[in-house]
Amino acid sequence: MSKEQIGWIGTGVMGSPMCMHLIEAGYPMRVYNRSRDKAAPLVGKGAVWCDSPAELAQGCDIVFSIVGFPADVEKVILGEQGALSTLAEGGIMVDMTTSHPSLAQKIHAAAAQGGKASLDAPVSGGDLGARQGTLAIMVGGEQKTFDQVEPLFHVMGKNIALMGGPGCGQHTKMANQILIAGTMIGVVESLLYAAKTGMDLDKVIDVIGSGAASSWSINNLGRRIAKKDFEPGFFIKHFIKDMGIALEESQAMGLSLPGLALVHKFYKHAEALGLEERGTQALYLVLEELQNHK
Amino acid sequence: MSKEQIGWIGTGVMGSPMCMHLIEAGYPMRVYNRSRDKAAPLVGKGAVWCDSPAELAQGCDIVFSIVGFPADVEKVILGEQGALSTLAEGGIMVDMTTSHPSLAQKIHAAAAQGGKASLDAPVSGGDLGARQGTLAIMVGGEQKTFDQVEPLFHVMGKNIALMGGPGCGQHTKMANQILIAGTMIGVVESLLYAAKTGMDLDKVIDVIGSGAASSWSINNLGRRIAKKDFEPGFFIKHFIKDMGIALEESQAMGLSLPGLALVHKFYKHAEALGLEERGTQALYLVLEELQNHK
Repeated sequence: MSKEQIGWIGTGVMGSPMCMHLIEAGYPMRVYNRSRDKAAPLVGKGAVWCDSPAELAQGCDIVFSIVGFPADVEKVILGEQGALSTLAEGGIMVDMTTSHPSLAQKIHAAAAQGGKASLDAPVSGGDLGARQGTLAIMVGGEQKTFDQVEPLFHVMGKNIALMGGPGCGQHTKMANQILIAGTMIGVVESLLYAAKTGMDLDKVIDVIGSGAASSWSINNLGRRIAKKDFEPGFFIKHFIKDMGIALEESQAMGLSLPGLALVHKFYKHAEALGLEERGTQALYLVLEELQNHK
Repeated sequence: MSKEQIGWIGTGVMGSPMCMHLIEAGYPMRVYNRSRDKAAPLVGKGAVWCDSPAELAQGCDIVFSIVGFPADVEKVILGEQGALSTLAEGGIMVDMTTSHPSLAQKIHAAAAQGGKASLDAPVSGGDLGARQGTLAIMVGGEQKTFDQVEPLFHVMGKNIALMGGPGCGQHTKMANQILIAGTMIGVVESLLYAAKTGMDLDKVIDVIGSGAASSWSINNLGRRIAKKDFEPGFFIKHFIKDMGIALEESQAMGLSLPGLALVHKFYKHAEALGLEERGTQALYLVLEELQNHK
């Protein structure tokens, strides 16, 4: 059986290695990106450049997108030159951007109307996970569609799960980011407290980083804070986007999440301090700065 | 070399098994507890009952205490009938209650004035850790004193660390509790969000419980929330005590911890809802209840 024709929209720090894994697995590939130069290494490996999402989707069996913001998702999929405008009946649109669950549902409805299918499939695991093919992929949509795309997901990630109907991939990603938000305020405040007492932060993490207080964040980002290393693993600007979506979606469901709202406020303050290109552990600098304005 | 004479104050759910481990290791033991009946099993194993901390400390080389609140610590150590009133010169007072770092420093100063020594040595690991002898023990005080008591700590726990001078054991425990507080608001809000979308909570935890959002809390207390199991591992009333100490101590150091303050407020609300005897995961019920009062 010959492999499906794939289209890939968005060849940034996440999308490029994900797309490359598919090319290396032998899938014929068409690519589109807002800035063409970032797609050059993929074209060098045999991908066909396309000038628009609409041009790209022609003749594709499955189109993936992973772009910046929900507005970009809307444009590349539902826009006038969007992928759905030319995707053939029976084709599948898979958006892997972290985006609005409600937009995923809107895309699903639009696709279905044209006899096409769609999945929302945001990821976690960062650029390292994308390069190593170890991403977690949280999928929303129909079982039948999931079954068709699943072999391709396994080329890009390790922990693949269909979470429910359209939007449930995004909802799961939101739950993930809400969990991280709370954990981060705990990490930052516990280390601020420890620093104020004059204790060695690494020694404190040695103790509190195992047992009932332990988390990935304290053992990884906490260690970076101890070294005063605020370089990005995950950018503050992207985390602000994700938390903003989670807050809007919560509000739409009539749900009040005061912890998330507080952490979002402090990360917005990080932006105001010019820290948006730093890693999420730079929340430490925000809370440190806050101590000067009481 | 014959083993030191030990005194043990406080034979509750933590203190009893800790004291029992020392008796089983062959240490001669004197015991005191506010309610005598709880000490009966220890007396049955050969411990000598004493009617007051002062009576207990007579002839002891090392006295341990693990009681309820800082006021109890102050009474059994510094009070008129407190252990320090009769502890001989060269004796060591070890308070293992989670209590004020500043009280630990006050005890240290009082002990030193009488030619005695002291350590603050709160624990984590719960009643299970106490029974299994796997507690983490966070110690503050002088190296020389720590070296004398360390073999006994190893009878009670696994992860033993001298964190710094007097109060630093308590400071480390506070950092631990601050970290848990933030993590718990993340756990509860992420699962509230997931529940509101109609997703299966265990399936969501399968995904978000590994990777960058993972923590002991989501994988243990989150699983309990998914089962609607709010029975205590760690009591809300004890967590409120610990967070209260952390907040007072932060304030005394001129440190503002808004995440901790928020979580403390919600746990105080749990108390108002009659949930103080539930486990800390019952924060979920508080946030759920909050949704009805917006």
